[in-house]
Amino acid sequence: MQNTNVRTGAPDTQGQMMALTSRIRQTPFSDRVEATGAKAFTVYNHMLLPLTFRSLEEDYYHLKEHVQLWDVSAQRQVEVVGPDAARLVQLMTPRDLSKAVPGQCLYAPLVDEKGGMLNDPIVLKLDEDRFWLSIADSDVLLWAKGVAYGMGLDVAIDEPDVSPLAIQGPKAEELAARVFGDEVRAIRFFRFARLDFCGRSLVVARSGWSKQGGFEVYLDNAALGGELWDELWDAGQDLEVGPGAPNLIERIEGGLLSYGADMTREHNPLECGLDPYCHLERDIDFIGRDALLDAARSGIKRRIVGLSIDSVDLKPCTTGWPVLSDGRVVGRVSSAAQSPHFGCGVALAMLDHGHWMPGTSVTVDAGGRDYPATVTALPFSQPES
Amino acid sequence: MQNTNVRTGAPDTQGQMMALTSRIRQTPFSDRVEATGAKAFTVYNHMLLPLTFRSLEEDYYHLKEHVQLWDVSAQRQVEVVGPDAARLVQLMTPRDLSKAVPGQCLYAPLVDEKGGMLNDPIVLKLDEDRFWLSIADSDVLLWAKGVAYGMGLDVAIDEPDVSPLAIQGPKAEELAARVFGDEVRAIRFFRFARLDFCGRSLVVARSGWSKQGGFEVYLDNAALGGELWDELWDAGQDLEVGPGAPNLIERIEGGLLSYGADMTREHNPLECGLDPYCHLERDIDFIGRDALLDAARSGIKRRIVGLSIDSVDLKPCTTGWPVLSDGRVVGRVSSAAQSPHFGCGVALAMLDHGHWMPGTSVTVDAGGRDYPATVTALPFSQPES
Repeated sequence: MQNTNVRTGAPDTQGQMMALTSRIRQTPFSDRVEATGAKAFTVYNHMLLPLTFRSLEEDYYHLKEHVQLWDVSAQRQVEVVGPDAARLVQLMTPRDLSKAVPGQCLYAPLVDEKGGMLNDPIVLKLDEDRFWLSIADSDVLLWAKGVAYGMGLDVAIDEPDVSPLAIQGPKAEELAARVFGDEVRAIRFFRFARLDFCGRSLVVARSGWSKQGGFEVYLDNAALGGELWDELWDAGQDLEVGPGAPNLIERIEGGLLSYGADMTREHNPLECGLDPYCHLERDIDFIGRDALLDAARSGIKRRIVGLSIDSVDLKPCTTGWPVLSDGRVVGRVSSAAQSPHFGCGVALAMLDHGHWMPGTSVTVDAGGRDYPATVTALPFSQPES
Repeated sequence: MQNTNVRTGAPDTQGQMMALTSRIRQTPFSDRVEATGAKAFTVYNHMLLPLTFRSLEEDYYHLKEHVQLWDVSAQRQVEVVGPDAARLVQLMTPRDLSKAVPGQCLYAPLVDEKGGMLNDPIVLKLDEDRFWLSIADSDVLLWAKGVAYGMGLDVAIDEPDVSPLAIQGPKAEELAARVFGDEVRAIRFFRFARLDFCGRSLVVARSGWSKQGGFEVYLDNAALGGELWDELWDAGQDLEVGPGAPNLIERIEGGLLSYGADMTREHNPLECGLDPYCHLERDIDFIGRDALLDAARSGIKRRIVGLSIDSVDLKPCTTGWPVLSDGRVVGRVSSAAQSPHFGCGVALAMLDHGHWMPGTSVTVDAGGRDYPATVTALPFSQPES
């Protein structure tokens, strides 16, 4: 057997060459992303999602200081519209949507009949009978269509030509205001407005997959991708606008979970710390209610927590790393990175009962090398000084 | 704006660096695949799928002459089991499954209520009440679970720990017989047997995504991946066994369609030339029946065909290429490659009515460069001499 090791490794990350085929969809911003020097991509919802531009660390510092444009087209929209739309969307999540109003964005765990996580989209309530689910990486459209078909619901479900472009970072509001007008400043967190761009009325939400603040612009015409990118790019030159992406370090520090990595169908939302979005005590009709009530009553057996790892050059976690206590496996790390801010490794891990209290000492087996680690609450916070 | 072009390009293919994260699943064979020098990967069903080893052309010639091991773990299994299993699987496909027997593999288009393609798995009938759907790239599990939930069917649906390893090429039978015994020689095309490996009884089917013949071994214990690979590898040294993968050139020549590239939810199976698997005249109950009957009655408006392209160095098609007739767009190429065998470009294209007859001349706009092309039947066959 040959022993050619083909891991070429982009800076700060482990990688492989990805063959491009027409099965992996390009985005309305792909040429701009390429032109600005994207170094590494992933595939998300059958679509390209750029992940790294300069390096994980440089992107991290830039995001926390300036403003970035993120091609997050891969957050596809599942549109649910019709007389039974509100009923179907409520059936899909334990979060109570009865008080939601048009213009509101709602983070919503989706679960199956056993309470297992299927996705964790932002639900955009466009109208009383029209919703977008801005999804993580699974084909929620098929679940929604299956349930609707089986129950005979009166809804239409489709994936519209809508591709979010995120504007993230402390200068995001200033940049967005220059292109969309001062109206963006009035948009509250997790609310959206419809603002004009090139004669179209675009959904612009104050949201995004970072803790640095910003907006997501839901472009509803792929042909305008270049124009939207360029206008924001040109308007942000003195703000040091740069290309960016959801950043592994920043999102772990912020406790943002990645569906498919940190949580899967094997986990329920209580184990994922999503209790605030599970309104089990209210009289709402959703799939998996009995299963989640059972889980809540009997108490969960494991839970996602943060880990501070005593490391100086921790590599990202590409397979689950065992977490040990007294030599026994008590959980698994799903995401990890070296944090320049905290000066240690930061990780998300699902730990068994008895081991998840902040301050608990454990050991992480990171691909054959053991590191001491301490359980922390999420999001990570500055150690007391 | 910077103008760094980051397309580094593996031989014969266009590529990008792919960042590895725990969201993209490794396979039971990933270390062997890496050790044997995989040059390019894709992501398929949220899992790594190696695509290129030496080069697209070298892999092609080797496949047609010798025998290859393919890590096709990404063909995940959707297991449907229970009293309503047969009913649910039939509901999902227009193919009549009423005469299927345990031990049979059936290629089956799956369609939604509008007749749109959702996937095209091989259905393995394990028992009267137990099926595996060996799927292409979409979350069929969510569709099956949604329909089952909505209709209140008595089935359990899950993704078991089953990862297919394909043995493909003219020497595949000889190699498989050395490891699994002469029983494999008796397995008919699209049938499977249960054969012993390391004390387990594995499903071994005469099938695979090439036209060169061979088998798919459904490994049901990820921990044995290395052993299975190594035994086949060691036993095949004098057969010149090599690592391989579904080969773009070979599968286009053979007319094998890739779901998500050549056909999507926008297409019905009649447009995809899958009429032989649509038993519309029989009295079977499946989702989308009315829609497909309508489509059949009114006649389809477009159809997948082959194109022989007058080219000498055609690059793979990573976005749809327009097909023109008299300057008007009459269709779109979804997959293309330069064929060393036919000495021309070979492509799959969906063409409008009036343009799909073999012999029709068209023009392909391959990313700004025009090529003359001729419609051909599928699979491609040797030109008459």
